[in-house]
Amino acid sequence: MTLLYGVDPRTGERLEPGVPETTADEVAAFGVAAADAARPLAELPLPERAALLEAVADALEASADELVRLADAETALGRTRLSGEMERTTGQLRLLAGEARSDGFQRDTDEPGFVRALLPIGPVAVYAASNFPFAFSVAGGDTASAWAAGCPVIVKAHPGHPRTSVRTAEVIAGALAEAGAPGGTFAIVHGLEAGLALIEDPHIKAAGFTGSVRGGRALFDAAVSRPDPIPFYGELGSINPVFVTPSAVAARGEEIARGYVGSFTLGSGQFCTKPGLLFLPDGHGLDAVLAEAVASVEAPSLLTPRIADAFRTGVERLTAGTRTVAESAGAHLVAVTAGDFAGRPELTEECFGPASVIVEYASEEELRAAAAAVPGSLTATLHAEPSDADLARGLVAELSRHAGRVVYNGWPTGVAVNRAMHHGGPWPATTGPLHTSVGTAAIRRFQIPVTFQGLPGELLPPSVG
Amino acid sequence: MTLLYGVDPRTGERLEPGVPETTADEVAAFGVAAADAARPLAELPLPERAALLEAVADALEASADELVRLADAETALGRTRLSGEMERTTGQLRLLAGEARSDGFQRDTDEPGFVRALLPIGPVAVYAASNFPFAFSVAGGDTASAWAAGCPVIVKAHPGHPRTSVRTAEVIAGALAEAGAPGGTFAIVHGLEAGLALIEDPHIKAAGFTGSVRGGRALFDAAVSRPDPIPFYGELGSINPVFVTPSAVAARGEEIARGYVGSFTLGSGQFCTKPGLLFLPDGHGLDAVLAEAVASVEAPSLLTPRIADAFRTGVERLTAGTRTVAESAGAHLVAVTAGDFAGRPELTEECFGPASVIVEYASEEELRAAAAAVPGSLTATLHAEPSDADLARGLVAELSRHAGRVVYNGWPTGVAVNRAMHHGGPWPATTGPLHTSVGTAAIRRFQIPVTFQGLPGELLPPSVG
Repeated sequence: MTLLYGVDPRTGERLEPGVPETTADEVAAFGVAAADAARPLAELPLPERAALLEAVADALEASADELVRLADAETALGRTRLSGEMERTTGQLRLLAGEARSDGFQRDTDEPGFVRALLPIGPVAVYAASNFPFAFSVAGGDTASAWAAGCPVIVKAHPGHPRTSVRTAEVIAGALAEAGAPGGTFAIVHGLEAGLALIEDPHIKAAGFTGSVRGGRALFDAAVSRPDPIPFYGELGSINPVFVTPSAVAARGEEIARGYVGSFTLGSGQFCTKPGLLFLPDGHGLDAVLAEAVASVEAPSLLTPRIADAFRTGVERLTAGTRTVAESAGAHLVAVTAGDFAGRPELTEECFGPASVIVEYASEEELRAAAAAVPGSLTATLHAEPSDADLARGLVAELSRHAGRVVYNGWPTGVAVNRAMHHGGPWPATTGPLHTSVGTAAIRRFQIPVTFQGLPGELLPPSVG
Repeated sequence: MTLLYGVDPRTGERLEPGVPETTADEVAAFGVAAADAARPLAELPLPERAALLEAVADALEASADELVRLADAETALGRTRLSGEMERTTGQLRLLAGEARSDGFQRDTDEPGFVRALLPIGPVAVYAASNFPFAFSVAGGDTASAWAAGCPVIVKAHPGHPRTSVRTAEVIAGALAEAGAPGGTFAIVHGLEAGLALIEDPHIKAAGFTGSVRGGRALFDAAVSRPDPIPFYGELGSINPVFVTPSAVAARGEEIARGYVGSFTLGSGQFCTKPGLLFLPDGHGLDAVLAEAVASVEAPSLLTPRIADAFRTGVERLTAGTRTVAESAGAHLVAVTAGDFAGRPELTEECFGPASVIVEYASEEELRAAAAAVPGSLTATLHAEPSDADLARGLVAELSRHAGRVVYNGWPTGVAVNRAMHHGGPWPATTGPLHTSVGTAAIRRFQIPVTFQGLPGELLPPSVG
């Protein structure tokens, strides 16, 4: 039996006890159980389905102290942040439960003689992320939205927080059993091999993923190479560019500079929405403010040894051939001209952690050209002034073709969980630009339309009628 | 220069003049032009966008006689059917234009501080089908829905009707130019190599396809293997099972038998919704009626020599080891027991053309087991009586997990174009079970959500505000 161990990022020490890797036979058995659960779960009355999500939220809340302690030991994210993330996670479960209770949730559109319903796609595989041990992990947004859609879930735990995952899974399983969920509504697997077996399991009908471009692409490739390809909703890498007009620098340059440093170093820069590119006009005069802000950032505790290694390599990549604007134990900030930037595509690759690149443009034309050239991202941000309306309108139109969310005079970090959120974007931000992994619309990833033609109302599935 | 020729299915003769295959350089140039058109097309006010679709509908209508004549020569589908199909095609363009004019078409959801819009994904590749030279071809549903979404379209013509495609494309191009569409809003390519180059073109952001499992899978594989994978909406093969309860046979067996033969031989069985499996109770006593109905079916003119060859092979596959119930110049109908059927998965493969399989079940239990075992299909049909309510409810719930449309006491052929239609289904019916290629919801395949955060209303794209 192979065991997986978490590591305390503060000390580098291995955390006992180890968590056994899931065998191929166990994965297969979970797949069968999930398939068996699919129809009874789909046929639960919607208020009962919603109550399952609420039962999980209640149980997580009751175990929050223990879970936060475990997660802090494995991730060093700190108890304050983790408690907040737990609230976000339970809030999300309750928001999605409310959505499943809402009128017409599964009854999409009527025409005389026709009813189109939105029914659960079947068992869903969820690949948890390293950087949100609750909100994008075992009971995170992918799991909650799949349950809200009426789908059994099998989570592949992230190896960065195995004990937190095991304990969260126990809390979930207990809550679901007590609330009367069909057996097979939830399972968890551990280990790389188990994760690959899961995406190939014939009972799995869709998958959600949050993580790196490399890992996400490998699983995406496996999902679409199956004899029966399945939808794979991956949220991968994002550079999250920020554009600042000359007027905005003139009006509030220092505030923007401090805000930017705050945003790219928040959570040690380990957010998928961390801004990685800042477009400032030539001669912005903000070096001193930026350096001061960077100097006051505390040294990061990166989530895992692997992330720490990748960050060191990433910083080397960014600092080679660029001007270092600010450097501290806590963060790195370099600058290039827009001309040099255009020839260095490696500067647009995500560097997970507290490092960022300033691109200095010489003219509005260069600014517009830069906006047209940025790769697909989860977010793009614009800081502008009312006097910039024409320039801003053009930039907003351009950026809406490159990012799933356009932020105006704000910061991309901190993703609201609501009905209008889109947390997605063109490749490489995601593997499917039509879908979001945050907000109520995330449920739609796991619902398939079925049109009933000429069917008497009393024969419609009760949850549709 | 390689030329492609249509063939008159009635005579087997080659139709002059030939149509040149599109070169790789030409495909690349179309890709660039489509990319250049993407933003101006996206930024047209929605009423102007809608007017483009209406201009194309008007122009097609004005050239309908000529186009129907060309299509009849290349497909032998008959002028009555083709005139009807042309009406369906122009009706669809106008329905989707109306959708693009409707309130809130691109403004999806609001929350305080957030607006989620649905914006065009970018240039779309459309792969035309053989069996609908208008409605699923150059100006068919995929093209119309991509334009309605605001996307430039490059069509890969079907080699079964090259001259119809060329002439339709000329009519479209003229109408778009006159209506003031951006150059690059539409192009057409011919040839297998051109079709492969198109799916790999970096400017193409999504694709729609209607055709065979083999062809669709090859293009799907290419689409998802790109450095930047793109959504590929393929409608492939479907067996469209029909289930008849014992009470329905008792109440109206002969009517059902005649209706079934009518449905599976309609259009010489060359519909994606052709029913390929009929589940009847043992001892149904309908052999004579079925044989009589089959005897009166006229000999088919299959669309292309390739389809005719595949049909002959398919009939050999179906007749081997089965009981022939009825056979005529026009159609083939064979039968097996449910027990034998379970061991012969090849009987669930689509046989394009007027052939079908009856499966005789011995008990309600066998009927329910059969419903649970059918492969993914565009449609599933149930004939039942009011006294069957419990049985019917269970079957409907089961069938909704296997088909995109569940038809009650009707026939699957004839797909209504409306707001509640879902023309899709699980693999192998489609490559993506969330989406429809018919009806107004088809537009959503080519719209990507973008959330604007904190953006003053006057900076929103005008088509969103």
